[in-house]
Amino acid sequence: MDIKKLVIDTGNENEYIRSLEIEYEELTAEYARAKMPFKKEHANPYGTMHGGILYSMADIVCGTAAWMTGYLVTTVGGSINYLSPMAGTEYVYCEARAEKIGKTLVTYSVELKNDAGKVVNTGTFTFFKVEKKLNIEG
Amino acid sequence: MDIKKLVIDTGNENEYIRSLEIEYEELTAEYARAKMPFKKEHANPYGTMHGGILYSMADIVCGTAAWMTGYLVTTVGGSINYLSPMAGTEYVYCEARAEKIGKTLVTYSVELKNDAGKVVNTGTFTFFKVEKKLNIEG
Amino acid sequence: MDIKKLVIDTGNENEYIRSLEIEYEELTAEYARAKMPFKKEHANPYGTMHGGILYSMADIVCGTAAWMTGYLVTTVGGSINYLSPMAGTEYVYCEARAEKIGKTLVTYSVELKNDAGKVVNTGTFTFFKVEKKLNIEG
Amino acid sequence: MDIKKLVIDTGNENEYIRSLEIEYEELTAEYARAKMPFKKEHANPYGTMHGGILYSMADIVCGTAAWMTGYLVTTVGGSINYLSPMAGTEYVYCEARAEKIGKTLVTYSVELKNDAGKVVNTGTFTFFKVEKKLNIEG
Repeated sequence: MDIKKLVIDTGNENEYIRSLEIEYEELTAEYARAKMPFKKEHANPYGTMHGGILYSMADIVCGTAAWMTGYLVTTVGGSINYLSPMAGTEYVYCEARAEKIGKTLVTYSVELKNDAGKVVNTGTFTFFKVEKKLNIEG
Repeated sequence: MDIKKLVIDTGNENEYIRSLEIEYEELTAEYARAKMPFKKEHANPYGTMHGGILYSMADIVCGTAAWMTGYLVTTVGGSINYLSPMAGTEYVYCEARAEKIGKTLVTYSVELKNDAGKVVNTGTFTFFKVEKKLNIEG
Repeated sequence: MDIKKLVIDTGNENEYIRSLEIEYEELTAEYARAKMPFKKEHANPYGTMHGGILYSMADIVCGTAAWMTGYLVTTVGGSINYLSPMAGTEYVYCEARAEKIGKTLVTYSVELKNDAGKVVNTGTFTFFKVEKKLNIEG
Repeated sequence: MDIKKLVIDTGNENEYIRSLEIEYEELTAEYARAKMPFKKEHANPYGTMHGGILYSMADIVCGTAAWMTGYLVTTVGGSINYLSPMAGTEYVYCEARAEKIGKTLVTYSVELKNDAGKVVNTGTFTFFKVEKKLNIEG
């Protein structure tokens, strides 16, 4: 049974997550790589991607990686830096790397890149492992 | 002429901002208070409001307050803490207070509350004033 | 027996904490107010207080408040904003307010002010409650 | 003339910076690597290195790298994550990588490691370039 597929499908049962159309290229608890199309309804008033959408993608990719620990998680805190505008790109690419997978807390650092591979945003997200296990049976 | 109305209307010309249906009760460069309905399409897999939507609201309310300085701004960085789930509430209430209104940088601290007035999220957002002035003529 | 005094004394048994000469005016798990002298050896190359000392004071005041929950704690993360230089002041004043006192995590927001009462720094600190209780017997 | 040496010497004229005994192995505006001895007076009440000292080292290494842009800088904000205790190590190793070197703002991500090469802390520091140039003549 494909646990990765089960975790992604569980996320996509949610309307908001599904609406972003994130596709995972790699997904483990330690590392995730995904891409998301730049939809015109996600632009900000300057025509570049809205910071809230960039944050949402980062949060979702990190949180989905955190689910791969086998636990449901809630976000404790997230922070994101906007190094340059996300513009002139068809997709946004996200890489999340686990900095810590603890008994209670899981922390990821994240980079968002444009089509040209330039790092446009960096961020850090910390999650709390909820006692209830994710309903995935391998 | 109502500058506050012009700033809010300018934001709402943007499809993403308009979709959140944020209503401003007070709006100056120093302080903003707004509310946003909890729409079912903004829930996360646990049924509480998605962290990316809460972040988006905070970013938009702070950024709209920052426009009241008379300058267009870009977000330098944002961070948000999730103190408890945003659930069982019809609206989310946001208060943004300027910590600094500098020549170049503007920083806000923000609180998000539920209907009962409980602080559910706190955050900090920093903006860079772009040289181009906002097209508002009083 | 004075729990507040015991907690402060426990902190001051530590050489680094003691060296900062922080004095508490109020100290509960929910709220702490303290002051610290601006010593010349804590200046940065510009003659204002070094950011690492300001951060240390904020971390220590929040962590000491967190001890008042009755638990030992470790810092999960800290962030600090420098709104203006800490200069021309005899003391630095710190106020820490609990945003959340959870079963596992404790989060404080903090303000550092100068003699004139101006907010010079803001920050957020999150702590993890270690299972071992603080050795305070009331 | 050795600009790197001039920048380091300028920092070490400051009493607080000098007291930490940071040694630079590599120093450019884009990347810095340095080490600092774990002195017993920098321990916290648990015997591991105090978070304020770890933060100070990260801030100073990033700020010294930022000086290599040729400009004096002030810290806008710093954040640090404590992934595990800094203990059982003779030195702390710091690597700072520029995420952005802009006209006005400079941002670094930083990692602190122990003797065994384990990442113990991660952080992000943002600096504002002050108009006054650093007095270094090549």
